[in-house]
Amino acid sequence: MENVTVLGAGSWGTALAIVLAENGHHTLLWTHREEQAVEINEHHTNQKYLPETNLPNNLVATSHLEKAIDHSDVVVVAVPTKAIREVCEKMMTFLNKKVLFVHVSKGIEPNSLMRISEMLQESLSADVIEEIVVLSGPSHAEEVVLHHPTTITAASKNLSAAEKVQDLFMNQYFRVYTTDDVVGVELGGALKNVIALAAGISDGLNYGDNAKAALITRGLAEITRLGVKMGGNPFTFSGLTGMGDLIVTCTSVHSRNWRAGNMLGKGMKLEQVLDQMGMVVEGVRTTKAAYQLSQEYKVPMPITTALYDVLFNDKEPKIAVDELMIRTKKREINDLQ
Amino acid sequence: MENVTVLGAGSWGTALAIVLAENGHHTLLWTHREEQAVEINEHHTNQKYLPETNLPNNLVATSHLEKAIDHSDVVVVAVPTKAIREVCEKMMTFLNKKVLFVHVSKGIEPNSLMRISEMLQESLSADVIEEIVVLSGPSHAEEVVLHHPTTITAASKNLSAAEKVQDLFMNQYFRVYTTDDVVGVELGGALKNVIALAAGISDGLNYGDNAKAALITRGLAEITRLGVKMGGNPFTFSGLTGMGDLIVTCTSVHSRNWRAGNMLGKGMKLEQVLDQMGMVVEGVRTTKAAYQLSQEYKVPMPITTALYDVLFNDKEPKIAVDELMIRTKKREINDLQ
Repeated sequence: MENVTVLGAGSWGTALAIVLAENGHHTLLWTHREEQAVEINEHHTNQKYLPETNLPNNLVATSHLEKAIDHSDVVVVAVPTKAIREVCEKMMTFLNKKVLFVHVSKGIEPNSLMRISEMLQESLSADVIEEIVVLSGPSHAEEVVLHHPTTITAASKNLSAAEKVQDLFMNQYFRVYTTDDVVGVELGGALKNVIALAAGISDGLNYGDNAKAALITRGLAEITRLGVKMGGNPFTFSGLTGMGDLIVTCTSVHSRNWRAGNMLGKGMKLEQVLDQMGMVVEGVRTTKAAYQLSQEYKVPMPITTALYDVLFNDKEPKIAVDELMIRTKKREINDLQ
Repeated sequence: MENVTVLGAGSWGTALAIVLAENGHHTLLWTHREEQAVEINEHHTNQKYLPETNLPNNLVATSHLEKAIDHSDVVVVAVPTKAIREVCEKMMTFLNKKVLFVHVSKGIEPNSLMRISEMLQESLSADVIEEIVVLSGPSHAEEVVLHHPTTITAASKNLSAAEKVQDLFMNQYFRVYTTDDVVGVELGGALKNVIALAAGISDGLNYGDNAKAALITRGLAEITRLGVKMGGNPFTFSGLTGMGDLIVTCTSVHSRNWRAGNMLGKGMKLEQVLDQMGMVVEGVRTTKAAYQLSQEYKVPMPITTALYDVLFNDKEPKIAVDELMIRTKKREINDLQ
């Protein structure tokens, strides 16, 4: 059994900490909120993020970051994307060992156009990074804690690091695959949120399952086009972290990005949507980054571009979706390749 | 404007006839039930299959097959798969011209292992076939008649025949793409019903969206493996007729195959399910054919094989799904390729 640290006690960080604790690992969950650590340690609950779940007794929480890092040489970074750089800076003030970092975030930073592992590399110095592993796939936290069968992929340039993460998390209900295609896994996880926003808009317009299936299919095609140009393996985009995660995100009402798109489709403005949701909608930032990437790599991404115009150029959602459907007739495969 | 005949006044045949009539074509809809033809001509409704739809006044029905065929050189075959050979035999008794056949059925014949276009070729003589075109994609009839945006693919070895079908059907809400990959389009449309049954079982077991996304993703991977070996283009399986149709079928409660799987997952036996549904569940026949194809082409198809065991070897659905999830850990891409 190993010592493992999880940073961030949102629903996903908590669910992963539960998996690790149930696998018998000495798991320490860090949260920046002292009262949340107390709740976890005294009541074995996390009411805000997983209200109906009893946490295992051997799962311990702390709000002391240095103590959390001291606990282990494996650190799962599950804080919101926007907080990653800040947490890394704090860690750098005391980190004096090499750590295997596992990140579970899905996003691309606008302007810098960095993937999460690149942000980690930039924010941490090389002498504290043993390796970086991405853990990604179709995985609602709410289902994992119910022990519903879930499959997920651990990606690292160093396959033995991915296999170490596989061994930590793998159990009867949580199946972990490995790959060395970090670029493909990170891009698939980030870009699916763009398509989820578009699918939400289509649903908000009441356009139905036929239109949504077309959007998802053509969405994956344009994600794949960009991802392959950026160095990803095309098979990755057809796998769990690409197609699998895209399907879950576009067809579940649990998805924050789908919900935000749905409100846009029903006629709300972006600021209203963000106000009403009161939390980060990662796909909005990622749409900007994806649009910038499509320009930089000269890859046509009609769905991303239409969504960019809706979010940032005040285009009517209905006009944007109608234009996507009414492009000139053509052969399908030319369009997918 | 053209003369077009549609054979079969089920929901999909009727919806396609409506699209054609709305596009201004002289459309004749054949049904073997006289009273249904009368209802369509006198009341402009089809209560049994599209209860809430008003049919256009210029859509005419007949129960006279020879009259229906005389009407046009373009015949859309939209009868149930099981009735195709019988209808072809009847047509052969009087057909004395070349016809462009468009078929919209999704299945593979067990034992003969023929695709629908091969069945048509076998049942009709070469001197009455101008060309065969397959029309397939993610398309609930109920949404098409509401003018919800729908995309679909016309496939023919002869692209100009596919383009003719594209011109007949294409309009603002019904977008038709073309391809020459008949094998890929027919296999994708047929085999997705196998995965829909499996997805229904997973949902019937309450296994959740994570498990279903994994099944759909790995399902498409095994369909693609087989399809490519049989001569299909891998891009076709990532397109509207592959992934697109698979998503619609697996995530919609309208899908007959999903519903049948769902009942199996809840513990009903196959005969009970078929009795209760009272209609053809194409995926059951197709599972047998897909299993036979996987043997013949020596392509590993774990989901198809598990489903075959559930349907025909009395295997417990829960055991079958659990075994699928609990295969030895491995790298993902090896498994997808």
